[in-house]
Amino acid sequence: MAEGDMRAVDALIGERMGSPVPLIPELASYIVEAGGKRIRPLITVAAARMLGYEGNAHIALAAAVEFIHTATLLHDDIVDESDLRRGKLPANQVWGNPHSVLVGDFLFARAFMLMVDSKSMDALHVLSRAAAVIAEGEVHQLVAAGKIETSRDEYMEIIGAKTAALFSAAAQVSSIIADRPQREEDALETYGRELGLAFQLVDDALDYGGLASDLGKNTGDDFREGKVTLPVVLALDAADEAERAFWTRVIREQPQDDATFDEAVTILKRRGALEGTLAAARAHAQRARDALAIFEDNPWSQALDQLAEFVVERAY
Amino acid sequence: MAEGDMRAVDALIGERMGSPVPLIPELASYIVEAGGKRIRPLITVAAARMLGYEGNAHIALAAAVEFIHTATLLHDDIVDESDLRRGKLPANQVWGNPHSVLVGDFLFARAFMLMVDSKSMDALHVLSRAAAVIAEGEVHQLVAAGKIETSRDEYMEIIGAKTAALFSAAAQVSSIIADRPQREEDALETYGRELGLAFQLVDDALDYGGLASDLGKNTGDDFREGKVTLPVVLALDAADEAERAFWTRVIREQPQDDATFDEAVTILKRRGALEGTLAAARAHAQRARDALAIFEDNPWSQALDQLAEFVVERAY
Repeated sequence: MAEGDMRAVDALIGERMGSPVPLIPELASYIVEAGGKRIRPLITVAAARMLGYEGNAHIALAAAVEFIHTATLLHDDIVDESDLRRGKLPANQVWGNPHSVLVGDFLFARAFMLMVDSKSMDALHVLSRAAAVIAEGEVHQLVAAGKIETSRDEYMEIIGAKTAALFSAAAQVSSIIADRPQREEDALETYGRELGLAFQLVDDALDYGGLASDLGKNTGDDFREGKVTLPVVLALDAADEAERAFWTRVIREQPQDDATFDEAVTILKRRGALEGTLAAARAHAQRARDALAIFEDNPWSQALDQLAEFVVERAY
Repeated sequence: MAEGDMRAVDALIGERMGSPVPLIPELASYIVEAGGKRIRPLITVAAARMLGYEGNAHIALAAAVEFIHTATLLHDDIVDESDLRRGKLPANQVWGNPHSVLVGDFLFARAFMLMVDSKSMDALHVLSRAAAVIAEGEVHQLVAAGKIETSRDEYMEIIGAKTAALFSAAAQVSSIIADRPQREEDALETYGRELGLAFQLVDDALDYGGLASDLGKNTGDDFREGKVTLPVVLALDAADEAERAFWTRVIREQPQDDATFDEAVTILKRRGALEGTLAAARAHAQRARDALAIFEDNPWSQALDQLAEFVVERAY
């Protein structure tokens, strides 16, 4: 249903990562085509259509949103030093940090060119502010890493900035170009923010393997970086003295070996910290769905509703 | 004369690097207040005033231009691994690569928020395109590093993108907000581009100590990174067999020791390559001044004219 629009978004993404410097599309397509789920541009497209928008600006804005996301992924690789991203080597391990920084900058600039194409100054305002907030959230997270005293509120503030800001902007801009009343813009802003929070909470639970008994690959990145995500916050809330000593040690002193990671997972499960994190994710996803209540029921509002379901279900 | 406006630009810069995450203004002010020469925002301010512009948008755009420049400096530190920048340790050696990447992203996003404040979609178009071209030029330079066969044309293309694009955009946006005819916009675009080329050529000569007999600090960065700048292109054009072998070796195989750098400087001087580079800089600066001929003679056009003189004079 959203397929035609999403094909147009993909085509525009492919076109706008072009450059006379061949290395740029080569590296950009490595990360863009790895593709991920295109959740953020889907929000923009589906929300615009839900509102009856009949123009073309939503395609450019959806592509811009994905470019901002891709640029932050490239720069995150330098920050996180992860070994795998979506099962592939991160771009900076293939091409080096300088190339990842610069191609990220290129995509970021191209995102703003796409926004100019949308001709909406209000959309530009919302998305440029989101881009600044994302960077603030990432720096905040860096500063908080290794700090066992990170509170649940502070953690929510961090993921609200680094993840939910782009989700909410992606939703909000659709009502801006469709020229809808403030009430609908607010509802979509809420939908996006709550969906983004749910998405990140699920990611944080999956980084400890989620509820599945087998620990797949791609787990333990947060642990190895000393990030205090909600699973750890909840485990600390319920910790006895020995567990508190364990967390204090492993969060402050990295790297830790695989056996210690397995021990962390065991404690998280014993304390119900992964269930607790996923329960929080479900609550936020529900708030996202509730925010859609003011809109007409149509295939597009249903798609947005299902997206909120999907975001949580991928954890199970 | 430009002092009032430039104070307003500085105040706006200080305000807009603010963030609830204290590390951001701390790191941003380290690089912004190191300050440099504020040449790019001065172009925007003086050109707007020269054209009789009486609004305020030139202040926001000038600050945006400086933020783009500052963001690229932060990211260049990661690319170049320089030991000193303007006589200080680069920010990434004080705070680390992740912080430099993310604060650069923050400043980049804030630059676009400032452009939104200017309310000019055409200025946004010009500056977002310039930001993309800068990144392309930087990647092009990375790809060309170590390649002795880099031609003069390719070198000019690289510096046209990585340096001159922002100078020309800084000049061009002033005529956009002042709503001047295309002919004046083109003249300012030429002024900025030629000034930017002159600026970079002087920088490249200074990286080999310029014409001064004493080699100061901060020289040799390009050499150590295997960058084929115009001094090297000209030295290669005039090289005998032994010199060609020398350049082929030192450009391809880095790092080289200080004695080898001194030898490179000796050859550059013997072959007149630094004079040749500065002669090219003078020619571009003259073209920048010529482009001002269509404008009324006033204190602002004189300031722009003097700026073109200053940019070359700092080499002597």
